[in-house]
Amino acid sequence: MDQSTPHFQEELAALSARLLEMGGLAEERLQTAVHGLVARDADATDRVLAGDEPINQLHIEIDGRCLRLLALYQPMATDLRAIVAAVKINSDLERVGDLAVNIAEATKRCLMHPPVKPLVDIPTMGRIAQTMLRDALDAYVRRDQELAQRVLEEDDRLDELKSQVFRELLTYMLQTPGTIAPALDLVLVSRHLERVGDHATNIAEDVIFMVSALDVRHHQASDGAA
Amino acid sequence: MDQSTPHFQEELAALSARLLEMGGLAEERLQTAVHGLVARDADATDRVLAGDEPINQLHIEIDGRCLRLLALYQPMATDLRAIVAAVKINSDLERVGDLAVNIAEATKRCLMHPPVKPLVDIPTMGRIAQTMLRDALDAYVRRDQELAQRVLEEDDRLDELKSQVFRELLTYMLQTPGTIAPALDLVLVSRHLERVGDHATNIAEDVIFMVSALDVRHHQASDGAA
Repeated sequence: MDQSTPHFQEELAALSARLLEMGGLAEERLQTAVHGLVARDADATDRVLAGDEPINQLHIEIDGRCLRLLALYQPMATDLRAIVAAVKINSDLERVGDLAVNIAEATKRCLMHPPVKPLVDIPTMGRIAQTMLRDALDAYVRRDQELAQRVLEEDDRLDELKSQVFRELLTYMLQTPGTIAPALDLVLVSRHLERVGDHATNIAEDVIFMVSALDVRHHQASDGAA
Repeated sequence: MDQSTPHFQEELAALSARLLEMGGLAEERLQTAVHGLVARDADATDRVLAGDEPINQLHIEIDGRCLRLLALYQPMATDLRAIVAAVKINSDLERVGDLAVNIAEATKRCLMHPPVKPLVDIPTMGRIAQTMLRDALDAYVRRDQELAQRVLEEDDRLDELKSQVFRELLTYMLQTPGTIAPALDLVLVSRHLERVGDHATNIAEDVIFMVSALDVRHHQASDGAA
């Protein structure tokens, strides 16, 4: 079969649609997890902990779609790169779902203590990570290299906030030992959010490679922080 | 071209060899990072921080090999799954390299303080993670489903140690506020090591899927800890 057949293009469009759906689920779980922490909403936290069955099912389904497309149509060039990118993006999104669970686990422990402080940077990190994720997926679907590039730039903001949260919470822990346990979990949450940003960055790099066959993955390492 | 041609099998063997090489580099960096922390060896830590150029180069090369194999030979069934698995494994190994850097960053901060305690569980975690990684890659190369299964079982030990490290270090922080800063970084290191185990687990799951076309990824979720 030929990759220019309408059928192939339809199946490729269906693959993108399923990835967007998976991205939507991952984003929603992330948002619920951060909301649970910030609003001290134990119900929201429990909903995240209750399981990510829909994401896991989609993960398996999308992998199957990619393998079928590769086997049936033997795509070349951009289409081949798009399907291989989909395999990787699928893994990234599944792990974002896992990170939402990690955030909910840390939140569960946090909620056993009084609030350390009103949370400002962590919800900001959550919003940035969520936007990065959505933009990276939009960039994939629209094959939009510029949007992917903007995702890469956002990652620096997330890294800065992560360092700021670390320093601030360390100060709290040192000054008020009663905050040690919950502040430790807040540090872990900030790391989980940073990692969501890493997954969005991976997706954006895959998009740039897919569109341009240009590998940007390890060229920025030299000017970024280690 | 046909996937049963000797040329295809040679290229597939070369791909496995490169993945093993990349795994060896990732393992070595991980080992050096943990050694830097445990032995308070700043030179080792600096070597890890100095960059992971060889790993990054291999990462790009292996991705290129996978795309070429898919485009030229249009492999089917197990061979197709083996190449798609290689794409994912390649990403996992690259991220293990990143985690070694994260461990070295935390170590750098740790070394500015006196030792919190003699480290026992963290080097054990490092050894388990390293063994899991090596076994998962061996399982890939040998297409050995049983070995892959054993990797999945090891992950529980790593999770237990992670929780134990967390509780123990929290106790130190609460009892001796002078240990807060370095103990916080030790908690982060234990999380990075746990994540290395997660990558090894991902690889092992890909191996089982490759060999048996059986998706084990989300069936264990129900009996494992959330």
